[in-house]
Amino acid sequence: MDIESYMNAVGQRAREVSRLVARADSQTKNRALLNIAAAIRKNSAAILAANQRDIDRSAGLEPAMIDRLALSEKSVGLMAEGVEQVASLPDPVGEIGEMKYRPSGIQVGRMRVPLGVVGIIYESRPNVTADAAALCLKAGNACILRGGSEAIESNRAIAALIHEGLSSAGLPAHAVQVVDTTDRAAVGRLITMREYVDVIVPRGGKGLISRLLAESRVPMIQHLEGNCHVYLDESADAQKALKIVENAKTQRYGTCNTAESLLVARPAAARLLPPVAAMLTARGVEIRACAGTRALVSAAVPATGEDYAAEFLAPVISVKIVAGLDEAIDHINAYGSHHTDAIVTEDYSNALRFLREVDSASVMVNASTRFADGFEYGLGAEIGISTDRLHARGPVGLEGLTSQKWIVLGTGQVRE
Amino acid sequence: MDIESYMNAVGQRAREVSRLVARADSQTKNRALLNIAAAIRKNSAAILAANQRDIDRSAGLEPAMIDRLALSEKSVGLMAEGVEQVASLPDPVGEIGEMKYRPSGIQVGRMRVPLGVVGIIYESRPNVTADAAALCLKAGNACILRGGSEAIESNRAIAALIHEGLSSAGLPAHAVQVVDTTDRAAVGRLITMREYVDVIVPRGGKGLISRLLAESRVPMIQHLEGNCHVYLDESADAQKALKIVENAKTQRYGTCNTAESLLVARPAAARLLPPVAAMLTARGVEIRACAGTRALVSAAVPATGEDYAAEFLAPVISVKIVAGLDEAIDHINAYGSHHTDAIVTEDYSNALRFLREVDSASVMVNASTRFADGFEYGLGAEIGISTDRLHARGPVGLEGLTSQKWIVLGTGQVRE
Repeated sequence: MDIESYMNAVGQRAREVSRLVARADSQTKNRALLNIAAAIRKNSAAILAANQRDIDRSAGLEPAMIDRLALSEKSVGLMAEGVEQVASLPDPVGEIGEMKYRPSGIQVGRMRVPLGVVGIIYESRPNVTADAAALCLKAGNACILRGGSEAIESNRAIAALIHEGLSSAGLPAHAVQVVDTTDRAAVGRLITMREYVDVIVPRGGKGLISRLLAESRVPMIQHLEGNCHVYLDESADAQKALKIVENAKTQRYGTCNTAESLLVARPAAARLLPPVAAMLTARGVEIRACAGTRALVSAAVPATGEDYAAEFLAPVISVKIVAGLDEAIDHINAYGSHHTDAIVTEDYSNALRFLREVDSASVMVNASTRFADGFEYGLGAEIGISTDRLHARGPVGLEGLTSQKWIVLGTGQVRE
Repeated sequence: MDIESYMNAVGQRAREVSRLVARADSQTKNRALLNIAAAIRKNSAAILAANQRDIDRSAGLEPAMIDRLALSEKSVGLMAEGVEQVASLPDPVGEIGEMKYRPSGIQVGRMRVPLGVVGIIYESRPNVTADAAALCLKAGNACILRGGSEAIESNRAIAALIHEGLSSAGLPAHAVQVVDTTDRAAVGRLITMREYVDVIVPRGGKGLISRLLAESRVPMIQHLEGNCHVYLDESADAQKALKIVENAKTQRYGTCNTAESLLVARPAAARLLPPVAAMLTARGVEIRACAGTRALVSAAVPATGEDYAAEFLAPVISVKIVAGLDEAIDHINAYGSHHTDAIVTEDYSNALRFLREVDSASVMVNASTRFADGFEYGLGAEIGISTDRLHARGPVGLEGLTSQKWIVLGTGQVRE
């Protein structure tokens, strides 16, 4: 098929229905979401059959990818649950901020409004199809979903149920469109049709996202890598330091909010590093460290500059002894990915300076970097974690999928 | 000179100093701003001399452009005043939003932070150099200013005084850099160096902005045209309608928040249109209208589809009779530029629907579109008026030049 005209048609339909979705009241949107969840539960067999066809086709792929692709009775149930959760969240659309009277006599405030048409580009995991559709719908946006080619049958099956749920609630089925082609040219068009798409949310590996960044003509809420740090300040409590590093590094190795680098204030290195290093080694974590650390930790191997910039997503951590807070902040801002960084300290002034001066989407004091998550922050759900500076930083929930317009209430005022 | 490497050096310096500007406290930033204002007042003769050289060189340009280029004792005084006003505004940087306790025991909230490096691209008016520099500095951003080649001598003179003010307050002079070349390639590089520039704010004509939009690789807070509407609802008060249309259309013809199109509900057309049309004609405004209007208004000439989409910036207005609210909203969303639109009505439900359903950066009830302005909204000053959907819509002040990061306060919590 002619991808260009196919994608244009998809975009045009999305733009057309976006107004209807934006105007839909909470009741209607929630009814659609609950219908979608019910349809997913009722048809899990069909979803799993489609998913099996994807898996059969994907024999060649690496196990990790197949693992992300595979659905189960349980994961289909969680998919439906996720959609129900979104239905239970408060509707952000139409929310009006504090209206202030101005000297002219007009009253000025802001109303939360949808972004319009959201394009989501993601890999393997078919559950993203349901998650993303639910969040976009609740935020009053039409969306265009482009999943991985390896999951196309699963995504098609889920899309059919989403359309069923939308229609039975009186909403246009095209409010959620799944790009029904595995041709890569479709992505190229999706990220350049400014006239139809207001924002792109990419979800996937660093490779995918940097490729999209290079070619996109549409604003993006990007999610690049997470090279997260834990800094043990001179005054750090040894118990907190041990617990936080253990949780931040070893709870899960593959997540973007996992700590990849440990910094320790020199005056506290001899006190804090040995027990922390022993814990890491006991858990099978490889320690790549500076000479100072290696003098205290026999198990440590030398670290290179790349190690300090790396997102390992594996049982590996880079460790560096720094002079103190200033060097720690400079190191994090220079080597980090501005995702999530934490300080362990009992020093009030250092805590405040770290919060203020570390240039990351999430900055924490005496807490594990693993908390950087939409649910943990109380967003209810997240469409991604932004490492962008504009619009939304960190976990992006319903609010990040909306914007605000100004509203003015007058009684006939004119400008002097 | 080699533009590419020149611009790279400019970008690199901006990125380097941006951290220092972000960390600067309110006192230091305000001292710098007041020093800049004082330097401008003290050296107005030098600024005017440089401006005269620009004017002499610009003999060829059209009068309107020369008019925007020309400075006077008075406008230089206003320039200094503007900078002093920015100094008097509250500092948005470091502001912490409501911190909420989460079930895990961590406390989560958001802190307002600078965007980093802001690139401003503008035409003629040299006063933008001082305005933009002041707003970026107060918001904790480093900035790169690229003014029109016709104003380069004026901008150079103003930049020298800005550097003087920055240095005497202990801030790096490079916190504000004026691109010191008239080579257009500099703009091409500025809008593509993502590694050094976080956001571009273009200020200028539609031509400039659509050109930048097409080529930019850096996020933009764009300001496209303002095709603003006033809709006279069936229940509109005749006096309010007359006053608001008069002010919205005739107070100033050249501004983006000036009304370019008038819509009237059919049942009220005979009651409302004749007096409004008479007022417009008396003020020398050409009326381009639909057949229904022309039947009521002899002075009206036929309107084309282009007229309804046009931003005249002149004593011309398009007029259309619509069936009622629904057609008005559809017309505005279809022909408007999503800038600013107003309804004149005494009907509660119609007022609410207009506020909710008109997809514009500013939506007003019984007030003149001319109020769409940073000062009128209480922002203190504005860097521009965004017609974008992401990050900031409508007048962009200090808040729009900042973003928010998440902060987490814990007492040793780890994730379950």
